[in-house]
Amino acid sequence: MTHSQAILNGDRLALARLLTKVENNSQEGRAALMELFPHTGKAHLIGVTGAPGTGKSSLVNQLALHYRKKEDKRIAIVAVDPSSPFTGGAVLGDRVRMRDLSGDPNVFIRSMATRGSLGGLAQSTANMVQVFDAAGFDVIIIETVGAGQSEVDVARLAHTTLVVEAPGLGDDIQAIKAGILEIADILVINKADRPGVENTEKALKSMLDLAHPTERVFQHHGSAMRTPFDQTQGKPAPKQDSSATLMWIPPIQKTVAVESKGIVELAESIGRHVVHLRQSGDWAVRDRARLEVELEALIHEALVKRFREEVIQEKYEDVLGKVMQRNISPWEAVNLLLNGREQ
Amino acid sequence: MTHSQAILNGDRLALARLLTKVENNSQEGRAALMELFPHTGKAHLIGVTGAPGTGKSSLVNQLALHYRKKEDKRIAIVAVDPSSPFTGGAVLGDRVRMRDLSGDPNVFIRSMATRGSLGGLAQSTANMVQVFDAAGFDVIIIETVGAGQSEVDVARLAHTTLVVEAPGLGDDIQAIKAGILEIADILVINKADRPGVENTEKALKSMLDLAHPTERVFQHHGSAMRTPFDQTQGKPAPKQDSSATLMWIPPIQKTVAVESKGIVELAESIGRHVVHLRQSGDWAVRDRARLEVELEALIHEALVKRFREEVIQEKYEDVLGKVMQRNISPWEAVNLLLNGREQ
Repeated sequence: MTHSQAILNGDRLALARLLTKVENNSQEGRAALMELFPHTGKAHLIGVTGAPGTGKSSLVNQLALHYRKKEDKRIAIVAVDPSSPFTGGAVLGDRVRMRDLSGDPNVFIRSMATRGSLGGLAQSTANMVQVFDAAGFDVIIIETVGAGQSEVDVARLAHTTLVVEAPGLGDDIQAIKAGILEIADILVINKADRPGVENTEKALKSMLDLAHPTERVFQHHGSAMRTPFDQTQGKPAPKQDSSATLMWIPPIQKTVAVESKGIVELAESIGRHVVHLRQSGDWAVRDRARLEVELEALIHEALVKRFREEVIQEKYEDVLGKVMQRNISPWEAVNLLLNGREQ
Repeated sequence: MTHSQAILNGDRLALARLLTKVENNSQEGRAALMELFPHTGKAHLIGVTGAPGTGKSSLVNQLALHYRKKEDKRIAIVAVDPSSPFTGGAVLGDRVRMRDLSGDPNVFIRSMATRGSLGGLAQSTANMVQVFDAAGFDVIIIETVGAGQSEVDVARLAHTTLVVEAPGLGDDIQAIKAGILEIADILVINKADRPGVENTEKALKSMLDLAHPTERVFQHHGSAMRTPFDQTQGKPAPKQDSSATLMWIPPIQKTVAVESKGIVELAESIGRHVVHLRQSGDWAVRDRARLEVELEALIHEALVKRFREEVIQEKYEDVLGKVMQRNISPWEAVNLLLNGREQ
């Protein structure tokens, strides 16, 4: 039986082994990805990002428990820590999580040791997600630390992106979030029993006002699924496709993950976002964007590989030497290597 | 007079204009970079990175003031904030800095609005640095926020990388630093008048022990320029090339930037690192690595450009459509686009 067949049959050991091969970008891993690809496209991908100290991991654990117990969904968690490019520090996190979720065959948790991600972090994560998708996991949670470009890239893989905040993390951290707001589908204030929660909520609302100025009037009326249509007519929006469902304003959800507070409401909010994605057509738009990014990355890789095969090492070293001596510029070097002339 | 000639002559306005062109990756910017390239390779590039809240900007300001007043050097500062991919949040920071350094024609401060960095953040930063280098700035400080892969990439541009810590930023943030330690040439504990400074120093020393286990015995003896030779002979290491100067253990420097404390000592430490780089040959090694990364990026870009010119848009859309329908995998799509066949 092939790897991919075993995975389609729900073999956990085969799954774990393939994930390692995929993470190492091995030939065998690639072959399996090709076989599995037709079976992908069914899972709901949820991105969770936020600064250290916001309690993201606890929140992800609680969300996973909720989906298991209340909705009987199969859950995969991919924990990515782009801030540890060398040490693969996420491994300990795995063990801590396992106390809540271990032993459940319908939960699979995997940390990305970013050291091994040869094809780029976002690319490796995308590949891992594809394996879980093909293996029949209903919800795949992609958890990343921080707010840098890597996190943004990773978050863009998801259908629904949660940005997690917490009260009292300081002004600097608040300032950073101004950028990441634009990728948030749902804002979560975790540790919402802490002092300062009102200030955090106020700050987020102000930032939302800035980010969605034209929709301001609807923003302070609770559910983000309420639309202009709702507001004026006072009745629920129709379920079928209509302009009324096209707008999504990120709602703010408050949670205390360690006490399991607010998790049901957060899951409901995520559910509303899925309905929105389906009705507005954004689900397909995000799928297309994700696949296009992946295709682009593979094209780059193939082009570079072909270049490496065509240009001999001595020539490359010779040209690099000329650049180091400032005899030619890097642009002239590229022309020399690709076209055999300097201009 | 050409742009580049004006810049070589010290024209600030021409410099500012060219930086914008370079940041936007315009044709004119590229042409100027090619002209300026032979004039590069003289500046000392200092990378400064650290989490939000460590006071990096104040530290960079103080360091710049020191270099101006005590060493009469021309200073450029490139402030990069990869955590704000959308909003270009670093602009306000410029104005705050300017109170200390404005009006001095030998100081030039530039923020990277990452929105405009078409060729990738590290690439754009490298180009900006080249312009400053050609324009005759002696020291170019590249400041980045955080500890993600982007920051690591940016830090790798520098000859000397400072990683800035501060007491009391929490365990989470300490944990992140385990990875970034490996890029640090000098560790700075800023805000060293705060409670908890001993713990921060202890934690950093433990991490250094882990990172440099074989050199442990020399680590607790003060200056990082002391070598095995020094310790046993009790006299300074010889100035000429010798194995005794090949080893560099990141020293820990304590500062209180807002009170200008520890800045002289930090500058001395940086000076020792420059001596080490020159004597060990690492200066050339780092220059080569930087230029090679740049050359690679330009090769990638040229390859993708050629691909875009060769593959017609309809074909690309057709293939992408097949991937979205899960009829072919992304790998098959690449083969179709590059070789005209699926395998």
